[in-house]
Amino acid sequence: MVAEAVPSAVSAVNPAGTDPYAGDAVFELHRGGKIEVTSSIQVRDADDLSMAYTPGVARVCTAIHQDPSLVRTYTWKSNVVAVVTDGTAVLGLGDIGPAAALPVMEGKALLFKEFGGVDSVPIALDCTDVDEFVETVVRMAPTFGGINLEDISAPRCFEIERRLKERLDIPVFHDDQHGTAVVVLAALTNALRVTGKSIGDIRVVISGAGAAGVACARILLQAGVGDLAVVDSKGVLHEDRSDLNPVKLSLARDTNTAQLSGRLVDALDGADVFLGVSGGTVPEDAIARMAPGAMIFALANPNPEVHPDLAHRYAAVVATGRSDFPNQINNVLAFPGIFRGAFDAGATRITEGMKLAAADALAELIPAEDLRPDYIIPSPFDARVAPAVAAAVAAAAQREGVARA
Amino acid sequence: MVAEAVPSAVSAVNPAGTDPYAGDAVFELHRGGKIEVTSSIQVRDADDLSMAYTPGVARVCTAIHQDPSLVRTYTWKSNVVAVVTDGTAVLGLGDIGPAAALPVMEGKALLFKEFGGVDSVPIALDCTDVDEFVETVVRMAPTFGGINLEDISAPRCFEIERRLKERLDIPVFHDDQHGTAVVVLAALTNALRVTGKSIGDIRVVISGAGAAGVACARILLQAGVGDLAVVDSKGVLHEDRSDLNPVKLSLARDTNTAQLSGRLVDALDGADVFLGVSGGTVPEDAIARMAPGAMIFALANPNPEVHPDLAHRYAAVVATGRSDFPNQINNVLAFPGIFRGAFDAGATRITEGMKLAAADALAELIPAEDLRPDYIIPSPFDARVAPAVAAAVAAAAQREGVARA
Repeated sequence: MVAEAVPSAVSAVNPAGTDPYAGDAVFELHRGGKIEVTSSIQVRDADDLSMAYTPGVARVCTAIHQDPSLVRTYTWKSNVVAVVTDGTAVLGLGDIGPAAALPVMEGKALLFKEFGGVDSVPIALDCTDVDEFVETVVRMAPTFGGINLEDISAPRCFEIERRLKERLDIPVFHDDQHGTAVVVLAALTNALRVTGKSIGDIRVVISGAGAAGVACARILLQAGVGDLAVVDSKGVLHEDRSDLNPVKLSLARDTNTAQLSGRLVDALDGADVFLGVSGGTVPEDAIARMAPGAMIFALANPNPEVHPDLAHRYAAVVATGRSDFPNQINNVLAFPGIFRGAFDAGATRITEGMKLAAADALAELIPAEDLRPDYIIPSPFDARVAPAVAAAVAAAAQREGVARA
Repeated sequence: MVAEAVPSAVSAVNPAGTDPYAGDAVFELHRGGKIEVTSSIQVRDADDLSMAYTPGVARVCTAIHQDPSLVRTYTWKSNVVAVVTDGTAVLGLGDIGPAAALPVMEGKALLFKEFGGVDSVPIALDCTDVDEFVETVVRMAPTFGGINLEDISAPRCFEIERRLKERLDIPVFHDDQHGTAVVVLAALTNALRVTGKSIGDIRVVISGAGAAGVACARILLQAGVGDLAVVDSKGVLHEDRSDLNPVKLSLARDTNTAQLSGRLVDALDGADVFLGVSGGTVPEDAIARMAPGAMIFALANPNPEVHPDLAHRYAAVVATGRSDFPNQINNVLAFPGIFRGAFDAGATRITEGMKLAAADALAELIPAEDLRPDYIIPSPFDARVAPAVAAAVAAAAQREGVARA
């Protein structure tokens, strides 16, 4: 290993004094990037080199050529995820393009490794056409054991995920949808325990019909929520609206059994749960009309749809997406353990059952006697989280017949 | 960092007793892959998380959106190479496909980091159409600071490299061509010093008109070799042959000033240098007819075109591709330092001048008083190699006006 002797690229590329962000703590943390590719074996001499590289490596290549399943044993494929974006819906910033999305993708890769022991590689694609995006990911798929889609605008993200799942025999997971949905379900499960309400009896209102809103609605329906209305910027989704894309229309058909119409404030009248995944602000009088023992999950970042101080006046349980308030709904509670478990099982896909199992495992980490209104979900730094989620997901993969191992 | 608590994917995916290669030292070294993606920063608590990921990362994304050049400062882009293959010409194994090529790509990534401090990511593409390959790489290019093409069959590799260089503003480098060519030129430079011959006076015969053969011919012409003949499986390349692809025809026009025709054995009559990059075996009587003070570089692996023991009977200097003989022509002497230097300079491309500078720097590492017939090229484990090559390449990038830094 002689890398120490080599001058640093970063100092040369960025001469001092030309960068307006130099010295800012956040920017300094990102300088030169947040991840690196390192060797997991030692190459000290010619013997090591002849085993790790030519000529020794040729035997490994030949073995994989003869038995393609061996790629999962003798390369990193079965432990590496591509974190793929086109930069069209980055955080709350919108369509800022692939290059500007890279810091988020690197952050995701960092969290995959730190929390799940999963290797991952940011891939920011300069193509926004759905066909091109799908073809590009399919072509690079031999390299990877899984695909984590990230920050892709709705409704394109639904079509992209659906087609990739059809084409590939490795897990494909759009974290903005399913990671959020899993953590929301876990938090709701424990919020119900705290409030003594039953999932079949509650009425849920979701503000936002993008990636997160659609996926949360779907997982809550699967988990047994009986009455659920989704609201977009035009009002409550119902079948008679003529302005709905196919994904929203399908959701309208499967939700809103009460046949609500109107705006968010109307839907909140008597609701048990408000789930905000849209941004914007909910007026206090709408919150005030929710049912007794209400639960408010206001996940917009950095500005929750309902500020926690206000929410606490009317709700029994309050959660946000922020780390500086209790009950943070953070995807990092889900995706590292979900992929860890999928990889441990050699899963060919991530099923609905695996996601429900992840949510259950996450909720169960807080025993009944420790549950409190301000402690319904574990901290991202609770070291039990990823192993518990991974074990539950791997077991579900076995039960559902999608495990190779 | 809780990754230690997570079970290993490798043991679960590969239960003991089902793998015929288990226990083989080479395979054990490759088990689970040879590289990993690690964090280069610390994420210990919610504060770190809020700076490395949301919400802090949004400021970095916004800054890059406003000034795209900042992607080179605040992500790993300016230090990361994609090692891209389609698996059509892997080592001497031929078209074994993308999955079976992965162990080589991982090995390359490992060497990039260990020898050059360059991060790199294997990308094995499931597409052999040139248009599709080029489009795929162009789409993923926002992610990477450079593209190292690897193990792509000729003549497709020439077209792919040419088009990618036109389309991208980052270094694109087909190592099987240019890495080999740089090390061959360095070795030849010192072999000429040992034998007292002059580059303008020698006659060179290259066996092989694939990626390495073509690139070696081109760099030797640039370096001043006056008389050079390239031989493919049908014989010496000359303009009157009707079976040549455009790359070979162009090479035929620029070489073979002696208007040779016939086979390899004919071309070797009186030649000063034999360069084998094709495999096969050269008969002893052909070697015997080379000029006095001949130089034989028989680079096929694992079986050189002329065995060194035989070559030494007729040649003053002998080099091979093997680590168990002196004078190993190994690409690892070139590619880590070349990309290190290109990255240090923020180079937009790798020019002919940068390659010639790399070869010079490599040759100059052995001072005149140390040069011997069995020591014309440094060892891959000589820690001076990558820094010397990098410095020369970065300086050449400045001179040639392709440096951003």
